[in-house]
Amino acid sequence: MGSRWKGKGAEVKALADPISEIVSQLQSSLISSNSKGLLSGTGVLLKADAELTDLLNRACFGRPRVTSEKNEQWFQLSTEEAFYLQHSLKCIKIVDHNDTELNGDKLWKHMTSSRENFPILFKAFSHLRSKNWVVRSGSQYGVDFVAYRHHPALVHSEYAVLVLSAQDGNAHGRLKVWSDFHCTLRLCGSVAKTLLILDIEEQQSCATSPSCLDNYVVEERTITRWSPEQGREKNVKSDPRVK
Amino acid sequence: MGSRWKGKGAEVKALADPISEIVSQLQSSLISSNSKGLLSGTGVLLKADAELTDLLNRACFGRPRVTSEKNEQWFQLSTEEAFYLQHSLKCIKIVDHNDTELNGDKLWKHMTSSRENFPILFKAFSHLRSKNWVVRSGSQYGVDFVAYRHHPALVHSEYAVLVLSAQDGNAHGRLKVWSDFHCTLRLCGSVAKTLLILDIEEQQSCATSPSCLDNYVVEERTITRWSPEQGREKNVKSDPRVK
Repeated sequence: MGSRWKGKGAEVKALADPISEIVSQLQSSLISSNSKGLLSGTGVLLKADAELTDLLNRACFGRPRVTSEKNEQWFQLSTEEAFYLQHSLKCIKIVDHNDTELNGDKLWKHMTSSRENFPILFKAFSHLRSKNWVVRSGSQYGVDFVAYRHHPALVHSEYAVLVLSAQDGNAHGRLKVWSDFHCTLRLCGSVAKTLLILDIEEQQSCATSPSCLDNYVVEERTITRWSPEQGREKNVKSDPRVK
Repeated sequence: MGSRWKGKGAEVKALADPISEIVSQLQSSLISSNSKGLLSGTGVLLKADAELTDLLNRACFGRPRVTSEKNEQWFQLSTEEAFYLQHSLKCIKIVDHNDTELNGDKLWKHMTSSRENFPILFKAFSHLRSKNWVVRSGSQYGVDFVAYRHHPALVHSEYAVLVLSAQDGNAHGRLKVWSDFHCTLRLCGSVAKTLLILDIEEQQSCATSPSCLDNYVVEERTITRWSPEQGREKNVKSDPRVK
């Protein structure tokens, strides 16, 4: 399918301003401001000054929340985003409503207790983020994530991402029956995205500690429809042996 | 969503020529010609003369096959279509390649041995066909069937039909996870169809005989997105009490 840039100049703009650098700046800024994320429902709230607001928006982490207070901007991070900043980039702390810090196994327990499949979803999220893809929720398209080559203001999302895991039997997972398969491919086609399957192979169970994430193996597969016409030669000269 | 007729006059044409009557004529014609369907792979082949060809096309049963013989037209029926004509309308016989007739439990065994979920799919198919819906394969849209109010030449399909069954645990079935749900609804919306769920409750197992079909209960549910705007009043005059 390839990248679909939004308007002229978008690609040049994106190349001049790589996501990797924006995320680096965000990381430094969060560390120097000693940022704390506050557990709230299924997500994490993060207070941001003007500089942080700009960096979070440009790096595409979280969504700005409307608040009644002036000069105060809060961002709502998904659990994957918050855990990526805390665990992978080590640039925020996460606290509960008593301002008690949760880290290591305790935070892991919190994340996995609310969502059983958090380990494999987080592995997929961090796998793509570490390769500098911008990763957003895919619920609008009935997939787990969508992945952008750069900021969604500059480019349409390129991949619709489904995260599967063979180990858990995938009994309630996706693509177990042909009709689901057809449905997903047809939808991806109609919104001009490529279906990317991330198959997470768990070497050991992730019950108690996030350290197991290092042993997960991620297998990437893209799935596209094959059209018989694609393989056929175009502009073929008539065979001289055929009279 | 409602019916989307194809062009002006299509609705009038459909009303003047009800599907129920076309199917009745097909039934009589098949009985008087003593028609036999030939088991072939996963479907059934049926030879048709000019009158039968016209009726099969108008009732939307099977697909015409190209053959090398002139003046001979074959139709490829799906297993549901063939079993509906044999079992429900009792207007064809079904034979194997030795010209031996298969009926009752023997035919049932053949149908269910190749596809485990044939009983619930057939129950759904016959449920809709007996209400004079035209039922076709839904694989193009990633569902089990699509249902038309009349012939596809006159009207777009109105329902995308998924057949679920609670009894078999539906372990490998559809709509077990939210992402599948979102995917299906989004696709149905984009092709202007309403998602119709047929939940088949099996009162007893269908292992040996088609007679159990009579005890199946079909529960119908349509699923649509709810938009908050839908419930809001339009063109509201300003409340005189509000100054």
